[in-house]
Amino acid sequence: MKSVEGSSEVNDAALRAWLEPWIDARVAAKVNELKAELRAELRDEERRQEATSSATLGEHASILVFSGDVDRLLSAFIVANGAVAMGLEVSMYFTFWGLTALKKERRFTGKSAAQRLLTAMLPRDAAHAGPSRFNFLGLGRRMLQGMMRANRVESLPDLVSLAREQGVRLVACQMAMGVMGISKEELIEGLEFGGAVTYLGDAARSKVTLFI
Amino acid sequence: MKSVEGSSEVNDAALRAWLEPWIDARVAAKVNELKAELRAELRDEERRQEATSSATLGEHASILVFSGDVDRLLSAFIVANGAVAMGLEVSMYFTFWGLTALKKERRFTGKSAAQRLLTAMLPRDAAHAGPSRFNFLGLGRRMLQGMMRANRVESLPDLVSLAREQGVRLVACQMAMGVMGISKEELIEGLEFGGAVTYLGDAARSKVTLFI
Amino acid sequence: MKSVEGSSEVNDAALRAWLEPWIDARVAAKVNELKAELRAELRDEERRQEATSSATLGEHASILVFSGDVDRLLSAFIVANGAVAMGLEVSMYFTFWGLTALKKERRFTGKSAAQRLLTAMLPRDAAHAGPSRFNFLGLGRRMLQGMMRANRVESLPDLVSLAREQGVRLVACQMAMGVMGISKEELIEGLEFGGAVTYLGDAARSKVTLFI
Repeated sequence: MKSVEGSSEVNDAALRAWLEPWIDARVAAKVNELKAELRAELRDEERRQEATSSATLGEHASILVFSGDVDRLLSAFIVANGAVAMGLEVSMYFTFWGLTALKKERRFTGKSAAQRLLTAMLPRDAAHAGPSRFNFLGLGRRMLQGMMRANRVESLPDLVSLAREQGVRLVACQMAMGVMGISKEELIEGLEFGGAVTYLGDAARSKVTLFI
Repeated sequence: MKSVEGSSEVNDAALRAWLEPWIDARVAAKVNELKAELRAELRDEERRQEATSSATLGEHASILVFSGDVDRLLSAFIVANGAVAMGLEVSMYFTFWGLTALKKERRFTGKSAAQRLLTAMLPRDAAHAGPSRFNFLGLGRRMLQGMMRANRVESLPDLVSLAREQGVRLVACQMAMGVMGISKEELIEGLEFGGAVTYLGDAARSKVTLFI
Repeated sequence: MKSVEGSSEVNDAALRAWLEPWIDARVAAKVNELKAELRAELRDEERRQEATSSATLGEHASILVFSGDVDRLLSAFIVANGAVAMGLEVSMYFTFWGLTALKKERRFTGKSAAQRLLTAMLPRDAAHAGPSRFNFLGLGRRMLQGMMRANRVESLPDLVSLAREQGVRLVACQMAMGVMGISKEELIEGLEFGGAVTYLGDAARSKVTLFI
């Protein structure tokens, strides 16, 4: 094969001309394989990202329940139970007057004078929470309850039980419990106790965030 | 070309040494073409994903309007109309006292005693909604209206009309209408009627979710 | 190298058979390099997108503060300060009664009769904001303050200062200031002034959106 080393430029060009289309074809075949492979990876990646993003964003709702008015609490639990039924993960965080929704009884022992006064003024349990308007010493509450029963809308305690059964995360705010002097014994079973960080941990990954 | 088959190892090596840079150059050229092509695809993909993600996430706001106070209703509609003006798709869902914003008149026929009482106590239409503070039998409302007019802030009925014209989705809660005994005839035209599922369907794909 | 041009098909085939595995190996090597390179790019891209998406979605909370009740304002600032501590960027937009949280003193000059009346009826500064329930001419406020001190919960003015120091964006609603006749001199330092567009600009890129 001395002829190769000793070949004239013309002969080199001839060899190249002969080899060129053939080598190009082989390269093209390999490169097309790679292209198909990488494109498939790109598609997989895309699908994975779509799945991740819908998982992270669509599956959580968090409700910060501040109000103790029965009409607002009803709205909060109707939204929460509806969201669970639609497949969202739901957490409710109860602070200040919102703790009323979780109350099963009232106790006066071990409380300061101010806390005892507050306990006396607040509804004894969720069933006694009054509406934000037209309460008139309980008349509005009873009227609303009658109107809801007539329209087969569940009562607040029923909605709370349903939420607990459906796996809604119910968190009572420890700071508010401390300030208002509400003990764990006054609240229903099956609760978690936490602070602002607990709430924010859920809220920061929630699609729906409400303050009620 | 017998010489090829019969060539010594030295000759093979010589041929390879001659072919190597040339073949490499051809492969490199093809591979670079592919690289540019795939990079362009990656960029396109990226742009498409950004567009999709901003479309899914940035384009919807949903407001759950619970309150019937004119100051809160003004806030709700100012936010809604502003959001539409900024290119967001907006839906408002009216429940309990929030239905006041959609009221055009009041009727008493076909209602229970409790519902007639409630009808009498609630504002006859959106223009008569009172503020959350300092209402004093309508004095606060008139004062607020005067102060708003003086500052060229639109009235509630004007803001509602604007929202409807701008294509804000206005949904009245059927459950609340049933409980409170509000008929479709008492509400303005151009509404949709729905339940918690209607609200949650919008909320679950909204970037901005407010309970007002 | 005449022999190439003049070679029989058999000789061509022989040369090809000899070259084929060798060329394929070179192409494969180059293509694998490219593959590794593009895969690295894909990973980078993915990481960059994850970073971007968590930056865009997870890092912002916006609170529309409508209420002037001290209990609601406390909740708003506890959430805001907690969110900043957790690494979120937070903006608070104060409208209507919510402006009370930013008030440092009250002035009567240059206001209409209605605005002077409103000024007289509203708390003179953040420290005098009353709770949403059981206020009884300031008794509830003092009781709540005592209960909070006993539980080492910071006062509203302290929480406002903390928010400002921690870089929470505090925006006062110019429209509400105009309607209610509140001047910049009545509000604390370090505020921004804006409209619905300012709020919506933040809200539209926020993960957590609350109306308080």
